[in-house]
Amino acid sequence: MKIAIDAMGGDHAPEEIIKGVDKALTAFPDVDFIVAGDQDKINPILQASDRVQILHTTEVISSHDEPVRAVRRKKDASMVLAANEVKEGRADACISAGNTGALMAAGLFVVGRIAGIDRPALAPTLPTVDGKGFLLLDVGANADAKPEHLYQYAMMGHVYAKEVRGLEKPRIGLLNIGTEEQKGNELTKAAFTLMKEAPFHFVGNVEARDLLDGVADVVVTDGFTGNSVLKTVEGTALSLFKMLKASLMSSTKSKLGALLLKNEFKQLKDKLDYSEYGGAALFGLNAPVIKAHGSSDATALFHAIRQTREMVQKDVPSIIRQSVEQG
Amino acid sequence: MKIAIDAMGGDHAPEEIIKGVDKALTAFPDVDFIVAGDQDKINPILQASDRVQILHTTEVISSHDEPVRAVRRKKDASMVLAANEVKEGRADACISAGNTGALMAAGLFVVGRIAGIDRPALAPTLPTVDGKGFLLLDVGANADAKPEHLYQYAMMGHVYAKEVRGLEKPRIGLLNIGTEEQKGNELTKAAFTLMKEAPFHFVGNVEARDLLDGVADVVVTDGFTGNSVLKTVEGTALSLFKMLKASLMSSTKSKLGALLLKNEFKQLKDKLDYSEYGGAALFGLNAPVIKAHGSSDATALFHAIRQTREMVQKDVPSIIRQSVEQG
Repeated sequence: MKIAIDAMGGDHAPEEIIKGVDKALTAFPDVDFIVAGDQDKINPILQASDRVQILHTTEVISSHDEPVRAVRRKKDASMVLAANEVKEGRADACISAGNTGALMAAGLFVVGRIAGIDRPALAPTLPTVDGKGFLLLDVGANADAKPEHLYQYAMMGHVYAKEVRGLEKPRIGLLNIGTEEQKGNELTKAAFTLMKEAPFHFVGNVEARDLLDGVADVVVTDGFTGNSVLKTVEGTALSLFKMLKASLMSSTKSKLGALLLKNEFKQLKDKLDYSEYGGAALFGLNAPVIKAHGSSDATALFHAIRQTREMVQKDVPSIIRQSVEQG
Repeated sequence: MKIAIDAMGGDHAPEEIIKGVDKALTAFPDVDFIVAGDQDKINPILQASDRVQILHTTEVISSHDEPVRAVRRKKDASMVLAANEVKEGRADACISAGNTGALMAAGLFVVGRIAGIDRPALAPTLPTVDGKGFLLLDVGANADAKPEHLYQYAMMGHVYAKEVRGLEKPRIGLLNIGTEEQKGNELTKAAFTLMKEAPFHFVGNVEARDLLDGVADVVVTDGFTGNSVLKTVEGTALSLFKMLKASLMSSTKSKLGALLLKNEFKQLKDKLDYSEYGGAALFGLNAPVIKAHGSSDATALFHAIRQTREMVQKDVPSIIRQSVEQG
């Protein structure tokens, strides 16, 4: 198996990206890599291996680039080169920690959509109290969605949860503003009707309040709402830690308490750190395209590679294609 | 001034509701009350006062009742009676901690909309790290919204922030999935164009990640997204406390640390408890209608009364009406 890596995307590129590849080289003897990026920066970090090929380029897409235009014009950017390896059949999947919008555009225009899937979906795994996590999609591949798109998101999430996470009967929930069937906006009411008849295990409407309690294994919503919910989880957790930190520094007694709880606070932070679950997968494309978190370190990138490897092993795109054909 | 109170709505009704009225009777000598509910349950708790009139009824709307049907059929329910006092001009505003949907229906059908306002909006104040809080609307009065509705929400939020919170130039933000002007779904793109030309201080798109950091004083969104964001904040905070609590009980050392930090944890919980900011106001009606949190205790209800009193003093509905007329 061959995975193409955009070595230049993300806050800690290329150092941490390459270190992640190094870890994966040791852990997964069955994976070869194509690494796109500046060879002068890559070579000093990368371990010598005949399982890695460098595609040298100095062009990069930055986080400030307008996604679609960048992918169309910067033909030699590391991200575009990595996606192109997939298109040309020289790699089975690609990973980038760079500009999310640009990676979605590269996925759509370079790797290409599965016939029958109207819209790809961006799907991260979020943490839950029980440590199992849940898949949320779409978190912004498409700002607007129609009921049949939500249905397709659910179907793709089902395939992923079953094949990659190994859940026998994944619980698929529809994010809504109430649990009763008749609740919601026009979109969710229509989507509910579609999903009731679906071959996957639809558990009905789920509320945002219960997400981190693990109310479903896969939660489906439009990209606008999903993006807002994802950023609200991140923002709330960060703000809480900020408030906690401020109050812990308020007295000698509280400082002592904080010292005693150092490990527990660290554990809590780790539990919330969803990079362990891998990156956010773009579903609905001809091959796995994975967005690693922008702040990815070597460990986060390693987990993204682990996840990508499983998606290739289980051939998730083919199963999605079959599911679409069977309706 | 006279405020009508639904004594029977909420998890701790009527005890805590009446205790809240008792507190307000002492604190606000300028407010009289009409209390709708079961006099046999109210009288033993209520302090004797010629400033309180009891509207006796044994009919109640429960949290399980279908909102619109309940308001139409249960004409003698405590909530409907309270709203009716406003309609008949015998009260200046009303408060309930009961069924949110039913209160919205009672507001719409009994109290009535301001001419020119297409949709009322439900607007709670959420906590921020700096303790100032921000107004979020709509959180579910209407699941679907058009761009001109978001514009009206912004205008109503502006009036509230200025008149009741006393902010000279409230910062109005549009909740979006990116800060750049061209970001978003069809709804927010069109709303952005409208708001750019508005007479209020529009600060542009704001992201859910930055809400609790106080990025704006008023944040406008459709009811579906707003409801999802509100419940995500609640759910994330609750889940975090749950995870923290579990890890604090894991060893003797951590238990000791937890003991030393008892006050700090309590402070943090209080900071997140937005009942201090009052209830969620329903904007766009002919008179203030306030939804106190379902779990309201006497203090929360007292703050809802304080907030309602200010809305009546400043005559918020009239200012909203004038703003609509001026376009």
